[in-house]
Amino acid sequence: MGFEYLTNTPLDTAKEAYLKDLTDLGFDSTEETVPVSESCGRITSEAVYAHGCAPHYAASAMDGIAVYASDTFGATDTTPVRIAAGRFAVVDTGDQIPDGMDAVIMVEEILLQDDGSVMIYSAAAPWQHIRQIGEDICAGEMILPSYTKITPSAIGAMIAGGILAVRVIKLPLIGIIPTGDEIVSPCADPKPGEILEFNGSIFSAMIHEWGAIPKLYPIVPDRFELIRDALRHAAEECDIVLLNAGSSAGREDYSAEAIRSLGKVFFHGIAMKPGKPAILGAIYGKPVLGIPGYPVSGILVIEEFLHPLINRWFHTKPSSCPVTSAFLTRPVVSGLKYEEFVRVRMGYVGEKLMASPLNRGSGVVSSFMKADGILRIPQGTEGYEAGTQVSIQLLSPIEKLKNTLVVIGSHDPLLDEIGDLLHRTDPGLFMSSSHVGSMGGIMAIRRGEAHAAGCHLLDTETGRYNISFLRKYFPHGGVKLIRCVGRNQGLMIAKGNPLNIRSFKDVARTGIRYVNRQKGSGTRILADYLCKENHIVPEKIYGYDREELTHTSVAAQIASGSADAGMGIYSAAKLYDLDFLPVCIEEYDLLIPDHAFETPMVQKMLSVLKSDAFREKLTQMGGYTLDRPGEIIPYLEDEIL
Amino acid sequence: MGFEYLTNTPLDTAKEAYLKDLTDLGFDSTEETVPVSESCGRITSEAVYAHGCAPHYAASAMDGIAVYASDTFGATDTTPVRIAAGRFAVVDTGDQIPDGMDAVIMVEEILLQDDGSVMIYSAAAPWQHIRQIGEDICAGEMILPSYTKITPSAIGAMIAGGILAVRVIKLPLIGIIPTGDEIVSPCADPKPGEILEFNGSIFSAMIHEWGAIPKLYPIVPDRFELIRDALRHAAEECDIVLLNAGSSAGREDYSAEAIRSLGKVFFHGIAMKPGKPAILGAIYGKPVLGIPGYPVSGILVIEEFLHPLINRWFHTKPSSCPVTSAFLTRPVVSGLKYEEFVRVRMGYVGEKLMASPLNRGSGVVSSFMKADGILRIPQGTEGYEAGTQVSIQLLSPIEKLKNTLVVIGSHDPLLDEIGDLLHRTDPGLFMSSSHVGSMGGIMAIRRGEAHAAGCHLLDTETGRYNISFLRKYFPHGGVKLIRCVGRNQGLMIAKGNPLNIRSFKDVARTGIRYVNRQKGSGTRILADYLCKENHIVPEKIYGYDREELTHTSVAAQIASGSADAGMGIYSAAKLYDLDFLPVCIEEYDLLIPDHAFETPMVQKMLSVLKSDAFREKLTQMGGYTLDRPGEIIPYLEDEIL
Repeated sequence: MGFEYLTNTPLDTAKEAYLKDLTDLGFDSTEETVPVSESCGRITSEAVYAHGCAPHYAASAMDGIAVYASDTFGATDTTPVRIAAGRFAVVDTGDQIPDGMDAVIMVEEILLQDDGSVMIYSAAAPWQHIRQIGEDICAGEMILPSYTKITPSAIGAMIAGGILAVRVIKLPLIGIIPTGDEIVSPCADPKPGEILEFNGSIFSAMIHEWGAIPKLYPIVPDRFELIRDALRHAAEECDIVLLNAGSSAGREDYSAEAIRSLGKVFFHGIAMKPGKPAILGAIYGKPVLGIPGYPVSGILVIEEFLHPLINRWFHTKPSSCPVTSAFLTRPVVSGLKYEEFVRVRMGYVGEKLMASPLNRGSGVVSSFMKADGILRIPQGTEGYEAGTQVSIQLLSPIEKLKNTLVVIGSHDPLLDEIGDLLHRTDPGLFMSSSHVGSMGGIMAIRRGEAHAAGCHLLDTETGRYNISFLRKYFPHGGVKLIRCVGRNQGLMIAKGNPLNIRSFKDVARTGIRYVNRQKGSGTRILADYLCKENHIVPEKIYGYDREELTHTSVAAQIASGSADAGMGIYSAAKLYDLDFLPVCIEEYDLLIPDHAFETPMVQKMLSVLKSDAFREKLTQMGGYTLDRPGEIIPYLEDEIL
Repeated sequence: MGFEYLTNTPLDTAKEAYLKDLTDLGFDSTEETVPVSESCGRITSEAVYAHGCAPHYAASAMDGIAVYASDTFGATDTTPVRIAAGRFAVVDTGDQIPDGMDAVIMVEEILLQDDGSVMIYSAAAPWQHIRQIGEDICAGEMILPSYTKITPSAIGAMIAGGILAVRVIKLPLIGIIPTGDEIVSPCADPKPGEILEFNGSIFSAMIHEWGAIPKLYPIVPDRFELIRDALRHAAEECDIVLLNAGSSAGREDYSAEAIRSLGKVFFHGIAMKPGKPAILGAIYGKPVLGIPGYPVSGILVIEEFLHPLINRWFHTKPSSCPVTSAFLTRPVVSGLKYEEFVRVRMGYVGEKLMASPLNRGSGVVSSFMKADGILRIPQGTEGYEAGTQVSIQLLSPIEKLKNTLVVIGSHDPLLDEIGDLLHRTDPGLFMSSSHVGSMGGIMAIRRGEAHAAGCHLLDTETGRYNISFLRKYFPHGGVKLIRCVGRNQGLMIAKGNPLNIRSFKDVARTGIRYVNRQKGSGTRILADYLCKENHIVPEKIYGYDREELTHTSVAAQIASGSADAGMGIYSAAKLYDLDFLPVCIEEYDLLIPDHAFETPMVQKMLSVLKSDAFREKLTQMGGYTLDRPGEIIPYLEDEIL
């Protein structure tokens, strides 16, 4: 199969032209009748008119007696009127008014007499306290217009108006065909080279959220005939079809040809990133989308192309995604040739809404999960500098962002545990943490981008942690240093220590593959210090420039056998069942800027630090010492004196 | 059964105390395990940690060749390096990197040689174009904290992290017991005195929208033992029980006693309107709510008391209902003793957001359906004057309100048809119409509260419609008069004319029950004129002060036999299969203020007026004449000259 050059059609052009092409092919919704009681959330396909009136009879609106109003004329406090038995009827709320009677008097306003008559003390106006026929709904009245979402109260109104079944737009059936030789159904223990088919589950959930019905077909291997047959079958059964390419973008991409063999390809190649290889086609007049294999590309492509099709099907106008402006914490560089979608994490620090770009890899589905918003960088724009105020499409509600504790700095799995305990204590509070190392955390606090930063920086001259760094970067204060934990740092090595590593010095030996942390992290600074102390030239260590961002990812490389040793904390080694050579107990503290310190979020976090639940969790994780967590450590000289 | 005096506990006090009482009784959610692929929207009951890494093997991020990076060192454009066959491996995106190899070179950057070796022109950095193990997710990492809603991308992240089943909070089962001798299951033809059980369907839909599972039990007659048995059964089966009282609030209200006989009543009587008779109780430690029978009361009580319980169950903080400020179009009077919930219809006219109070009857479910917001009048406040700026809890999105054509004035069913055609043409546009009569419409336009008003006011001196009124109320212009329809006005009378009514004069005869329209409506003004012309004293007409707000509701009274005659338009008579004595063809026009005239909404409405679809609809309804609809009629003297 030859290499196919993709076009680079601008996103909005493609979207508009494709909708027009489909309209020309007759793409439109179908209808069905459903019981009103099961119609909540459905969209009417035609106007709904009441069959009957509600109330359907003149009904008492009170508990009391029904009377002939004319019998009561002239009644006052001083000239009460007697209504003889037979000239009134006792009625409860909702009871029918007997024929000819035309007013109700409340039970509190009558005096029953021994002879069965009643005395009344004021005249009744005709039709008082009577719910007239049709007070709520009149027969023939339009209850709901066409293309209107049915709400719970609309269900009540329809039933009240005598309607038990309603014509609605059918829910579109969206077929999803996963393809690829390397793709396997979700399982707990995939083999190397096997890729779990989770796109189908993500897309199904999105389709479900958009009010349509997903149908996930079995995985189809990379063979043209099989893909074509699966497409034909799905196009016959479904209203819209998604063909999810295997992640192999090169030699084995049969998607476009298979669609073309049964129908038409309108566009192949959209000027968006991620998502460029998307295909917009049709088979039997039904939309067929070729979706790129990487999950993030796939999510963006179906958001941009499938969602509008579903809205068109339902004749609803998409509710526009709320947009807000925020300040970029880091520069973002983008290509000129495409519109780029950058996922960002967001948080309010003080009054300022910050947006931090997340990992842009299109295989990193967790970054989509963590995203609070999407920064769209238009085609023709090179990107933005840090500090730029940009427009963000919000994925999280503003209220959540206002109640999110933003933690940026050194990584420790205990941060996630703090976040979990915080949210368990108060479901209105959230935590978002980014791992940029201790120095990165100090800088984020200085720039006003975080409420807290994990920090464990060793001053090799004093042997003390953090204090001298704070004096340097916050010479006039403005930040509090909060005692968190002591933690066991050391060398993580494969279980059983097959390479007989005895000390840090050994990592420079030939044949040992080291895996490092990123520059600026406290652990990297410690490793650099250990090199110096052991008179090792870092370049001599194989893999010293192979950088990972967290303790856990260093441990993961060693556990998988792709590296032999790396510095990290005991809890990470324990998690991956690695051997551990302790090097030191270091102080892992939290920096909190003064302006955030008194906020309820931070105060609740400090309570978490002091809680028994936190202590229990750390014991379980292992390798931590706890000594008065949550206490303020003075660091300025005049504070200490 | 004795009369029980209700307490009058303030709403917030009751809500808070009740939640505390339930917590003391141990009210809390239960958990279950569900497949991850079916977990979208569910709430985690505990933190979720990854089982495996994603990717779980070092994978190529490109199509190309995997190499030993050290083999490539020194390669440049001028000093290419040859990699022998066997020292590289062809890899596609996603393929595993062979053991020991540690870099990928893109296919575009190599030159294949005849002997099976490749030439490369730049050195490969170790680990370039390789997706490291755990790049997306590391084993042991927390993917989701407790009490977190599962999103589509979270499903992807969990599957990628090797998790196939997840612990979530069970969906609570909410039992609904309808009670009342007069209550019958929804049907098309209820008898007088029968009340359709639609509350259960409304509540079920609300419960479903809140993420819980409704269970609607059969209707229980008003007998203490039966209600008690149904309660016991539901409290055993469900997590929360709603006991929906029959609408009879007086003699047959067993709810409180039945709850007390099996558990406890904490509150009976809340200072809210509607909703006062609500009961907050518990049976077997499970919340049991006694819900008033009127639908509007019931909706408000379950919104205020059930919704917080469901949120508590899910450990989620309720997302606060958006609040906006708007100007009241009419005064609202409220009692001091309770917090009142007034439903309002809303619309932007120019930049000003207006709120019009809807029918406050607690039996009028259609008013809830039409409501765009709720005005909460605090306990201790007497209400607000027209024009007051008030806080409104929004039920409709602001975007919808900005695209809603506000029509206030004379009633005609054709307005609903215009609204329907408008929305069918452009699903982003909506219409809201209120019936306040022609004079009310003129006033609404003058106050800047409407985009359009239906108007058919006869100047009896000139015999012409509308023009002299516009000259009087808009002497300097500012409004356009748009030709709409001619319509056949006349006397609607029972089918077959059993009372032999031959002309308007006959309605003054003894034994004829007239039903009138409200003062200020064009039809009322016409009726007053007919009285004068026929030398009838209006007080002589029985029912002349019985007022209905629409042509259809007048027709409904006649059709049901509760009145014998009333003025109205032919289409209403036809809808109810009534006889009709024509009186005149009147001009029903639309007033549109200049400031709204050029808006897309109004222009699209004018297109609808001129459309064939509108003409067809009117033909079908009957009694209309169409002559250049949508045309501007000059009304100022200098315009006409």
